[in-house]
Amino acid sequence: VSKVIVDGMSMSVDGYTAGPDQSFENPLGINGRSLHEWMSVEAGTAGDNDPVVGATIMGRNMFSPHRGPWPDDAWNGWWGVNPPFHRPVFVLTHYPRPDVVMEGGTSFHFVTDGVESALARARVAAAGNDISVSGAATIQQFLRARLIDELYVIVVPVLLGSGVTLFENLGDGADAFDVGTLSASSGVAHVRFRRTP
Amino acid sequence: VSKVIVDGMSMSVDGYTAGPDQSFENPLGINGRSLHEWMSVEAGTAGDNDPVVGATIMGRNMFSPHRGPWPDDAWNGWWGVNPPFHRPVFVLTHYPRPDVVMEGGTSFHFVTDGVESALARARVAAAGNDISVSGAATIQQFLRARLIDELYVIVVPVLLGSGVTLFENLGDGADAFDVGTLSASSGVAHVRFRRTP
Repeated sequence: VSKVIVDGMSMSVDGYTAGPDQSFENPLGINGRSLHEWMSVEAGTAGDNDPVVGATIMGRNMFSPHRGPWPDDAWNGWWGVNPPFHRPVFVLTHYPRPDVVMEGGTSFHFVTDGVESALARARVAAAGNDISVSGAATIQQFLRARLIDELYVIVVPVLLGSGVTLFENLGDGADAFDVGTLSASSGVAHVRFRRTP
Repeated sequence: VSKVIVDGMSMSVDGYTAGPDQSFENPLGINGRSLHEWMSVEAGTAGDNDPVVGATIMGRNMFSPHRGPWPDDAWNGWWGVNPPFHRPVFVLTHYPRPDVVMEGGTSFHFVTDGVESALARARVAAAGNDISVSGAATIQQFLRARLIDELYVIVVPVLLGSGVTLFENLGDGADAFDVGTLSASSGVAHVRFRRTP
């Protein structure tokens, strides 16, 4: 069965997934890069147990540094002509845009009617494979709506002081999960939660 | 030299050091007990490297379930006649009270003129040993004022959803620390930060 997963979100000990003042020059915000340095230590080899992801849902803030209406259709994400997704990506936004088909199997689809609609479209696109949810604000929305089946967070031993929070007032959304498992490697903590059966 | 330390504060992955609705019956708040279960797994043996603490500073909310003016002088903490501190404890409060001398070397001193004053008095009492700071709100105040030298946080793989936050808007206070070290044992992450020299 297709699961809805957060497949590895790096977070500072004080709860930020990006620094403050995200911009085109600073997509991870000020000091946000420190959240991702552990990756260069850890060999990026895909394991047999890695989930097979058939579609991705992300927030507009992850797709683009712009806010408000699209200035034009020129912006196609941070990732160049061949983005690393190689699958359909559903971008939650208040502002409609035509679909964009990139090289390598990635396509961007702009969803303006909310989380449940994005999930329904992603389920069709994923065709039984898993659906990953990306971006702090979007993950929060999914957690509050109790739509996440597996949540993988990487806690990085830095303090950012301010920035984009991942977990804020989850409320009842937190009850959806069992006690997680935690292991350390490359100086960070890998924490995995599963939905309570 | 006497250091100001946070000597092991348990925190959920979503940033809470206690659950919501702390009360006399529920001093750790709803579900807060899950933050401390790892301790029963880990043998509580003092190591040679454990800091020697000569005085403790805590917030009034850690000392007592009451809020507002003291109803009387009957409440002497949660810990019985022989509290586990065995040293002077300085309680930050807006409401004065006479000192209380307990068994086993613990005494409670009520400080109404703020963090710096409590620290000055604790330094004298500690006589060159370290000073520990306890309680989420008090630790936050000290972090914002950049008064902490060593910060030891235990990240527990649970999501509480709401409760008492440890790190909230540290702002510049976060810059006081180097990248921390992280290790896992008993299913939790031990994260240690030191003040940047």
